[in-house]
Amino acid sequence: MKTLIKNGHIVTAVDDYHADLLIDDGVIMQIGKNLSAQADDVLDAQGLLILPGGIDVHTHFDMPFGGTTSSDDFETGTRAAAFGGTTTIIDFAIQQRGHSAQEAFETWLGKAEGKASIDYGFHMILSEVTPATLADMGWLVDRGVTSFKLFTAYPGVFMVSDGEIFQALQRAGEIGALIAMHAENGSVIDVLVQQALAKGHTEPKYHALTRPPQAEAEATHRVIALAEMANSPVYFVHLSALQALDEVTMARDKGQAVFAETCPQYLFLDYTNYEEEGFNGAKYVMSPPLRTHEHAPHLWRGLAGNDLQVVSTDHCPFCMKEQKILGRDDFSKIPNGAPGVETRLSLLYDATVRQSRMSLNRFVEITSTSPAKIFGLFPRKGTIAVGSDADLVIFDPEGSMLWSAKTHHMRVDYNPYEGRVTQGAIRYVYSRGEKIVDNGQYFGKPGRGQFLVRNHFVKP
Amino acid sequence: MKTLIKNGHIVTAVDDYHADLLIDDGVIMQIGKNLSAQADDVLDAQGLLILPGGIDVHTHFDMPFGGTTSSDDFETGTRAAAFGGTTTIIDFAIQQRGHSAQEAFETWLGKAEGKASIDYGFHMILSEVTPATLADMGWLVDRGVTSFKLFTAYPGVFMVSDGEIFQALQRAGEIGALIAMHAENGSVIDVLVQQALAKGHTEPKYHALTRPPQAEAEATHRVIALAEMANSPVYFVHLSALQALDEVTMARDKGQAVFAETCPQYLFLDYTNYEEEGFNGAKYVMSPPLRTHEHAPHLWRGLAGNDLQVVSTDHCPFCMKEQKILGRDDFSKIPNGAPGVETRLSLLYDATVRQSRMSLNRFVEITSTSPAKIFGLFPRKGTIAVGSDADLVIFDPEGSMLWSAKTHHMRVDYNPYEGRVTQGAIRYVYSRGEKIVDNGQYFGKPGRGQFLVRNHFVKP
Amino acid sequence: MKTLIKNGHIVTAVDDYHADLLIDDGVIMQIGKNLSAQADDVLDAQGLLILPGGIDVHTHFDMPFGGTTSSDDFETGTRAAAFGGTTTIIDFAIQQRGHSAQEAFETWLGKAEGKASIDYGFHMILSEVTPATLADMGWLVDRGVTSFKLFTAYPGVFMVSDGEIFQALQRAGEIGALIAMHAENGSVIDVLVQQALAKGHTEPKYHALTRPPQAEAEATHRVIALAEMANSPVYFVHLSALQALDEVTMARDKGQAVFAETCPQYLFLDYTNYEEEGFNGAKYVMSPPLRTHEHAPHLWRGLAGNDLQVVSTDHCPFCMKEQKILGRDDFSKIPNGAPGVETRLSLLYDATVRQSRMSLNRFVEITSTSPAKIFGLFPRKGTIAVGSDADLVIFDPEGSMLWSAKTHHMRVDYNPYEGRVTQGAIRYVYSRGEKIVDNGQYFGKPGRGQFLVRNHFVKP
Amino acid sequence: MKTLIKNGHIVTAVDDYHADLLIDDGVIMQIGKNLSAQADDVLDAQGLLILPGGIDVHTHFDMPFGGTTSSDDFETGTRAAAFGGTTTIIDFAIQQRGHSAQEAFETWLGKAEGKASIDYGFHMILSEVTPATLADMGWLVDRGVTSFKLFTAYPGVFMVSDGEIFQALQRAGEIGALIAMHAENGSVIDVLVQQALAKGHTEPKYHALTRPPQAEAEATHRVIALAEMANSPVYFVHLSALQALDEVTMARDKGQAVFAETCPQYLFLDYTNYEEEGFNGAKYVMSPPLRTHEHAPHLWRGLAGNDLQVVSTDHCPFCMKEQKILGRDDFSKIPNGAPGVETRLSLLYDATVRQSRMSLNRFVEITSTSPAKIFGLFPRKGTIAVGSDADLVIFDPEGSMLWSAKTHHMRVDYNPYEGRVTQGAIRYVYSRGEKIVDNGQYFGKPGRGQFLVRNHFVKP
Repeated sequence: MKTLIKNGHIVTAVDDYHADLLIDDGVIMQIGKNLSAQADDVLDAQGLLILPGGIDVHTHFDMPFGGTTSSDDFETGTRAAAFGGTTTIIDFAIQQRGHSAQEAFETWLGKAEGKASIDYGFHMILSEVTPATLADMGWLVDRGVTSFKLFTAYPGVFMVSDGEIFQALQRAGEIGALIAMHAENGSVIDVLVQQALAKGHTEPKYHALTRPPQAEAEATHRVIALAEMANSPVYFVHLSALQALDEVTMARDKGQAVFAETCPQYLFLDYTNYEEEGFNGAKYVMSPPLRTHEHAPHLWRGLAGNDLQVVSTDHCPFCMKEQKILGRDDFSKIPNGAPGVETRLSLLYDATVRQSRMSLNRFVEITSTSPAKIFGLFPRKGTIAVGSDADLVIFDPEGSMLWSAKTHHMRVDYNPYEGRVTQGAIRYVYSRGEKIVDNGQYFGKPGRGQFLVRNHFVKP
Repeated sequence: MKTLIKNGHIVTAVDDYHADLLIDDGVIMQIGKNLSAQADDVLDAQGLLILPGGIDVHTHFDMPFGGTTSSDDFETGTRAAAFGGTTTIIDFAIQQRGHSAQEAFETWLGKAEGKASIDYGFHMILSEVTPATLADMGWLVDRGVTSFKLFTAYPGVFMVSDGEIFQALQRAGEIGALIAMHAENGSVIDVLVQQALAKGHTEPKYHALTRPPQAEAEATHRVIALAEMANSPVYFVHLSALQALDEVTMARDKGQAVFAETCPQYLFLDYTNYEEEGFNGAKYVMSPPLRTHEHAPHLWRGLAGNDLQVVSTDHCPFCMKEQKILGRDDFSKIPNGAPGVETRLSLLYDATVRQSRMSLNRFVEITSTSPAKIFGLFPRKGTIAVGSDADLVIFDPEGSMLWSAKTHHMRVDYNPYEGRVTQGAIRYVYSRGEKIVDNGQYFGKPGRGQFLVRNHFVKP
Repeated sequence: MKTLIKNGHIVTAVDDYHADLLIDDGVIMQIGKNLSAQADDVLDAQGLLILPGGIDVHTHFDMPFGGTTSSDDFETGTRAAAFGGTTTIIDFAIQQRGHSAQEAFETWLGKAEGKASIDYGFHMILSEVTPATLADMGWLVDRGVTSFKLFTAYPGVFMVSDGEIFQALQRAGEIGALIAMHAENGSVIDVLVQQALAKGHTEPKYHALTRPPQAEAEATHRVIALAEMANSPVYFVHLSALQALDEVTMARDKGQAVFAETCPQYLFLDYTNYEEEGFNGAKYVMSPPLRTHEHAPHLWRGLAGNDLQVVSTDHCPFCMKEQKILGRDDFSKIPNGAPGVETRLSLLYDATVRQSRMSLNRFVEITSTSPAKIFGLFPRKGTIAVGSDADLVIFDPEGSMLWSAKTHHMRVDYNPYEGRVTQGAIRYVYSRGEKIVDNGQYFGKPGRGQFLVRNHFVKP
Repeated sequence: MKTLIKNGHIVTAVDDYHADLLIDDGVIMQIGKNLSAQADDVLDAQGLLILPGGIDVHTHFDMPFGGTTSSDDFETGTRAAAFGGTTTIIDFAIQQRGHSAQEAFETWLGKAEGKASIDYGFHMILSEVTPATLADMGWLVDRGVTSFKLFTAYPGVFMVSDGEIFQALQRAGEIGALIAMHAENGSVIDVLVQQALAKGHTEPKYHALTRPPQAEAEATHRVIALAEMANSPVYFVHLSALQALDEVTMARDKGQAVFAETCPQYLFLDYTNYEEEGFNGAKYVMSPPLRTHEHAPHLWRGLAGNDLQVVSTDHCPFCMKEQKILGRDDFSKIPNGAPGVETRLSLLYDATVRQSRMSLNRFVEITSTSPAKIFGLFPRKGTIAVGSDADLVIFDPEGSMLWSAKTHHMRVDYNPYEGRVTQGAIRYVYSRGEKIVDNGQYFGKPGRGQFLVRNHFVKP
């Protein structure tokens, strides 16, 4: 199966040129002027922008949480991702206390199998660090699960001790894996939550008010110190607070191997969303919470200067009806998370071209190339180069998109960006050479997505 | 009882002049040129330096530790302090898990009663923070125990969670108390200790090698963040690492109420002492450990610039024979601590006058005035002013002292500064107007020391 | 002549107590409870606060500037100072290009002689650094002029090159003198001024808009670097911008001997004063200019944390009528300066007691003790101690003062704090034991003030 | 003319893959697997590394300096560059005081014409900033000279005032140009030089000892402040000191558009070279001077973390015989500069592959891609992409090179890296599709190099 895409405007993390693209058997075979191959399919991309398909390294499909389950599974979730221009996701398998990480891996493979329509990998969440866990880390790395997530938050559920984090970091350093951290001081936050509830403060906004930026910054600093002592790299998920960014920046200035992602919600929404009328603030209950408006400009600065390398989504949807409503009378019972896997690329593309937040090269880098490099997928994924998978998203810069829960493809009954219009329309999406999105129609069959055996971590 | 001291060279934290001093009923009544009062006792201090008596806010007399007890009790300890020019100590009462802090207070009052020959106060160590503990904090403040110590080290014994520290800080802020912190990441240190022992690394030096500076700096940063969130002041005991000093400095630059002490051992000894032959390294096993030689210049800088406000001793002696020896085959079993209550003033005075480390005013400030102000003893203690207790140490700048376990007054079979000669000889020491040290003779009766009801914390 | 002051509440930079005070021949002889001396004069200070007389190290009396002269001379200026509780001033003699510094010294001695009613010293402004100037520096130090001021501003008048500043710093380090710097990048400011005028921006506020905080911060950083290379101490006059404070703070954190003063105008006024109606903004035309409101809180923080050690006035008055008016059509022609020698202590005392900006001890330190120590006047001036000059200011804490051009004693037709009421009333002022202010009456004879031969600089 | 390069291992700033490359008319036409075009020339690059040709943005060919002229002209200089894998240089035209920049441009065009065998552009050095200069800046930008260099060093020759720098920065910001700065405080350095000579310190090492790192850091900070006030980007040439790097890092952390290059001599040589026997230290007399050994690790860190974006050479050769010798008795008369245009790529490639200093992608970025982007040459130069000039350097990773004055192609009688062997051999160099270097033979005709009209500065 050969596809020829003619006359495209191709942009990678570094390059920017006009050329034809020949795809054979899912792989990019040739890039050039006036390619004249026999192709089964020819697309004229005149006036269109051809970018590497998006890579979202932070999704939670089909995830159990507090008695309910995130509302997208691997079928609906990967379909929504593809509609949004994302062709690879890395989801989180969860090792539960008293259960093995190997078992969790099998469970999550099962959740994706037959359902995913784009390629996927897994991080493994560790809810405890024991000799058995440390052994399982090696077993998993051999199977392409080369990153592990730990928490300094959620005491009693996911929170592990500093000694456990330290041991996991040491182990990761030895076996070429990367530790991804959820950094918030859960011990202090729990005190603040109990104090708030004791005062009758039950509305959604107290979710944010009991998780101050300093609680994130402190945990970020602490884990950086643990990583320094372990002499291992570390990656922070969903960095939201300027003070946490400062910690990352200082560590990187000293040459430490510290990486971090932020998410669109921290760039495009803010604390005032919690004050939307009625129970609507619950839509934005996630951890870390949305911050006040002065944080986002710093995050943009961090993205521009490469102190933040990645924008992922932390996509973890729960419907307002039946799910978010569980916390109607107690913010601490609202399922944590929000949808975003479909909106990421469009929001960022819009900020790039309309607000000049960064160059198109940098847009590609933070949404595709850097995630691929950091998480062992490069050069198979994350670029447009000869030999790479033909994962492509093709934008019409003249078009635009209107976001709404009525039309989006995520299985959730609200959209945090309801009514927002983004410049640029996603016309086509290719996954390994297959055109799975074509002007709003979906051709990606459940099960066609492949599990990605990821490489060891190498400092990019 | 009136005493007249003639012709002295008086130095306080700010002043420097020559005058006579009239003491009546233990209190300084007059300072002036040519005082001509009827006095029961007249001392001619021509050529001598008159300074406020030393205040050592960190001693551990009669302290149970791992099956043994620190070798100085309140009788021998306060006598040694007085010989060293220190006229006030603040010791640590210990609330044990499952026991009340009120009970600990009574126990420690009992330990001192009838024994102490100089004035004393207590901090209270909290080994857990519960509603009962929080209530006891108020009870203790009312009785003059206005500071509380918590640990981020010693998991299973003293280490409390970040949430507990946070609550204690909040409470202290409300009731005018000060939290004193032992800041080392005990969770990581325990991992390092177990890893070292597993490799057969049992010698004393591994005590230091398993407690890296970053473990102190991390905990220092963390507690500063907790104090910021609690909007309360905080005090760090025995700061030893330059990286921890950096954290304190940065917080103070931002205006946060952060205070810290260091100890003579971190200024005058270093890591190489652990490599003394045989088991001699055990003499220096204390926590935090002695650091490598590049740290001390930073501590001196911190003292000069007031980022460190106090030098205390952490006096906690254990004899080599019978006590330190318990860790002969396992450094983690060596009782932690070293003697120092007698040597502090002389070592620092020597550094002041011979090495020009600071002015005499600053010497007085860090050894007496600042401790008095920070811990609610000023102006009764910590200065030479009309109305203050006549606690005085009188140095002969021409004399010198030779330090040795053979001649010191601390009840311990070694001296970390064995053979060292310090410029300046302590000729006389007055406590509340009583001359308790007179050229090497002791006149301080056990039991004459008074328990000091300390005032609330006020930012100096 | 003996004076006995009874029952006072005495506060120094460190102490705080109640006692009597005996003055003999202008010097403090005794401090004590129940002093019973034969005194020529007895004052009952019950309920009053006795503080060391203020020291203002930055005044410009009888100073030629752009064709006019500052409106206070040494007679009116020292009288106003005394009314404001200041008993010592250090004024600036000016070496003009092509004239010697020795000549300038004689000229300024002549200006003060027979006029000053309080004690005074001189700094020497150097408008060029030549071999002759460098030689004169030594001559002046021998005569008690132990500080020299240089400018990075005013090209063509006072601005000297970095190489000249560097040589003056080297020389000062050798001879025990201190360089005081006016730090603003005059070269850039001149460009901005010309650009503003070219656009027709002539109103007073453009004085501020053409002297941005970065121009001050840059010059501050530069001079700190020059001082580091010269290994000499340096003192910054009239620090106004938070960014400049940051530079000073960073240098001090590294242990460099860097000192700085700020002035009341930067603490109590701000940029909005330039927008007062008509030409009133001219009242506040001084260099550096008043800053926007976010700067002052940082200056207060700097004072609290001792990154700023002194508050002086930069008193340099010009009448609105006839003097300020010269710049009616061109802000660059408005004589630079404003009155303040009389208001300093009252404004700061008010901020201390009413706004809790700092302790009374610290108030004394920044207005009297630190200036005395930094500029070689201690312990003769700057404290209340046996043997020191009896320079005292006695406040009635229950009283208050109303500030107005109608009632103030400065010879200038406006008061920047017109209508402001400050808590605390200055009842008595003593200069070397003479009561020169007594409840609003002045007894200080012109010419009674003495020229102060200042000591070499010693790092405090 | 078509060239087909088969089986190459192509590395760009982001990509890394194996493919064939088709060049037509000097431009890259196709990249792909199994390209089968009719080509005039076919090269089998099996086992070889194909990289974008090096871009050296800092050379001084045929430059008059203190009565002599740099020993390479555009013929020998560009030939040596090509032998070293560099296919583009940007040299410095010099506007002399009293002469126009337009005149300088014509002069330098003349110097290169008929001589250069690779492509070249010009920066313009401004030795004064006047209304005429500011006007000329626009004229030059229109002709593709889009960067201007100014000096804070060399008083009396190149040093301009801060106000001049500020105006040039403002102007550059308006017209899309970039100011490149030589940042050393020349005013202080001149004092130090005079003081050294006065003491009879004439040997080459005093060149370094009179140009301390702080003099570079200070000027760097100052220019950053000027650029901030002008709201314009700025680029620092030949950054050598860790303290200067700290200034750049801090500015970039705040989001300011600050860029900097370092040079191989600061990475591979150090101060001890000045102590080579006899007059050999003169080989390394350049400004800034070589630093002590602790600086280089920071520069490597800066390169890794992108606080340094470029490595250029500051190639400015003078022969020991007849040129360097002019300073035999006075280090200040030694012509400043050293050769390096030929050695840059090999030294850095060696550090990349043998010492793992960075990834190959990053090696390409700092030697080619970033210089092209910063100086308006991208995408014509600086990458391997369809449509770009076929400027290529082809390394044999198995080969090695031995550096010596006997064999190098630079016209100078010594090599600072004499005897050094670098891993990797440059086999072929292509300039716009022409193979100008083929295994040690040169085919680049003088005059074939083109003047490059560079684009406006765009923040990369």
